[in-house]
Amino acid sequence: MSNKKLNHKIYIAIKKTIKNGQKDLHVPSLGKKETVNLEKCIKDNMVSSIGKFTFDFESSIKKLTGAKDAIAIVNGTCALHLCLHLLGVNEKDEVLMPALNFIASANAVSMVNAKPHFIDSKEDCLEINVNKLDIYLKKILIKKNGINYNKFTKKKIRILMVTHIFGHPDNLDQILRLAKKYNLKIIEDAAEGIGSFYKKKHVGTFGTFGVLSFNGNKTVTTGGGGMILTNNSKLAKLARLISTTAKIPHLWRYRYSHRGFNYRMPNINAAVGCAQLMSLNNFIKSKRKLYLRYKNFFKDIKEVSIMKEPKNTRSNYWLQTLILNKENIILRNQILNFLNKKGIKVRPVWDLLDKNKPYLKCAKMDLSGAKKLEKKLINLPSSPSL
Amino acid sequence: MSNKKLNHKIYIAIKKTIKNGQKDLHVPSLGKKETVNLEKCIKDNMVSSIGKFTFDFESSIKKLTGAKDAIAIVNGTCALHLCLHLLGVNEKDEVLMPALNFIASANAVSMVNAKPHFIDSKEDCLEINVNKLDIYLKKILIKKNGINYNKFTKKKIRILMVTHIFGHPDNLDQILRLAKKYNLKIIEDAAEGIGSFYKKKHVGTFGTFGVLSFNGNKTVTTGGGGMILTNNSKLAKLARLISTTAKIPHLWRYRYSHRGFNYRMPNINAAVGCAQLMSLNNFIKSKRKLYLRYKNFFKDIKEVSIMKEPKNTRSNYWLQTLILNKENIILRNQILNFLNKKGIKVRPVWDLLDKNKPYLKCAKMDLSGAKKLEKKLINLPSSPSL
Repeated sequence: MSNKKLNHKIYIAIKKTIKNGQKDLHVPSLGKKETVNLEKCIKDNMVSSIGKFTFDFESSIKKLTGAKDAIAIVNGTCALHLCLHLLGVNEKDEVLMPALNFIASANAVSMVNAKPHFIDSKEDCLEINVNKLDIYLKKILIKKNGINYNKFTKKKIRILMVTHIFGHPDNLDQILRLAKKYNLKIIEDAAEGIGSFYKKKHVGTFGTFGVLSFNGNKTVTTGGGGMILTNNSKLAKLARLISTTAKIPHLWRYRYSHRGFNYRMPNINAAVGCAQLMSLNNFIKSKRKLYLRYKNFFKDIKEVSIMKEPKNTRSNYWLQTLILNKENIILRNQILNFLNKKGIKVRPVWDLLDKNKPYLKCAKMDLSGAKKLEKKLINLPSSPSL
Repeated sequence: MSNKKLNHKIYIAIKKTIKNGQKDLHVPSLGKKETVNLEKCIKDNMVSSIGKFTFDFESSIKKLTGAKDAIAIVNGTCALHLCLHLLGVNEKDEVLMPALNFIASANAVSMVNAKPHFIDSKEDCLEINVNKLDIYLKKILIKKNGINYNKFTKKKIRILMVTHIFGHPDNLDQILRLAKKYNLKIIEDAAEGIGSFYKKKHVGTFGTFGVLSFNGNKTVTTGGGGMILTNNSKLAKLARLISTTAKIPHLWRYRYSHRGFNYRMPNINAAVGCAQLMSLNNFIKSKRKLYLRYKNFFKDIKEVSIMKEPKNTRSNYWLQTLILNKENIILRNQILNFLNKKGIKVRPVWDLLDKNKPYLKCAKMDLSGAKKLEKKLINLPSSPSL
């Protein structure tokens, strides 16, 4: 089939799937419940971070995820930054993270003055390639006083960030084993993963920390927002303290025990989150049905397929994803241009992080898996209203 | 008069002033206009940072302040951090700031890995003591290749942060002259200063950058929020880019030109801010009247006075301030304990920054002026509803 004909067939399949619905990539579904909560904030004169909704939102997230603690933060990037800060990551560290990833992980690492170290993804899923990473780490690590160093850059390697891309976690057992082997602490960037489970356990609860995002484009939004998940109560207490300027409790005195941040989620944002969470099950039901509809309408186009949740995973299907059967950047770009010009707001996966100007000089392993995926993936309209 | 009798007289004067009104230090006045704007956000499905209210809020702030550019940020601390980042401040810098100051300035400096360097305040106002600082800088600075270094710590000194405490700016002409003399760039922490003018010019517009705060306890609130003001259009453009992950504009491609932050104010918070700004004139009128009422009811208590706006300043009177005529930490603490136990939420000024654990080892000049002020100041209930 010619590319032109293929573009057209893809366009028709999308149109059949979304009918007259939302052509944007992902917009939130907001309604009466959100308005009621917001009105309550105004009526109670409680809009800032010392508010009931902020605590309620944390409780609901704990219940949903099974995390022992949840700390509501202004957004996912700041939440990642705080996790790295709490683990003492600094200019002497390199932090392992997939190159096939949103830039927030790398930016958060920069905020503690450390460097990202980019690792490869598995071609057949979106998680890191654990076997390949194992071989790589054996080659580059040297242990001194119980701490692993990159023998080439002399930086510590103590942290592995993993990202559950488009809401699909995979291989977490294998990742945990590798982390144990190399004494790596895991920070899960589960920004895209609310409502996604791996072996019946919610994402963000496997590592030392997990981070959710409630940005405007996420399954659940608070306008801007994030959440730190942890089962470590000492770290949780510290996260809560440091995210609210680390003020020492006192009837009237103002002094501070730690370098603090102003990172706590305001009540008004949490109010929207509390309402949104009440719809989460319905959102995910819609999104899982949307996957089946896309799959059905694309079944006769042999050049592409629709991404399915990995084995052992129950995914939120945050973003529906078209996969070209063969990597082909020219075809990918043609499809993106064609559909966007038709008003269908499709997008590719991010340019690999190591190709972005601020991170050109960072350490990296062979990224052939990620490079292939980069040329194959296109996200389709995925709003919960579809 | 005995301290006990004085405490009681102060209590009575406050009760007469605030009648049955708000006994908290400062709570916002929110109402119909805020609710209408929030309902609009939900109806239009626009809660995150790409929203009309965020841009409208910036326009209104530009109009109010006369700043050429205004960039809405998640909060004041993050706004200060971004200003320091944009000026290239890093681990080789010390940043001059008053010790009599909120911890956010020091925390923002820590976020770029620089060190605060604490300077003294004038005993008769709340701004820095410019003459004393001039003498001090002459002693400690050494110039190499046009850059000033602290000859003792070897750190660069390029930035002077000033804070317009409780909404009262002062001496800005003198501060600007000093900055010019020593080639210092000014960042104005005008977090407390919305609606305050020095010689008819709004605070936050004198330095390279100024920062406003819209935290829950401020004259105008957005739940959590801040604003960067600048007349430098190049820096403004960069601030806007970097506060939104520094994505390079493209129809569908995701790549990034700079280390970015996720710092932009969500639409839902700006919606509250837009409504609040419509009431700003009334808030300030109330606060200026409240000053007169406090002054009147305290006029017969000779041991104390109520802080008046400095000459050349039209202040927003964010927090009303009781001043003991003589510094007396024991009396100050007795008053604070007595009134708080009576349910009147008064507070002292912050412990000087150099006495807080994370900043114990920072460089500082003689702080005798600030130390005296610390023992004299008590903030009184100041809500705009009073």
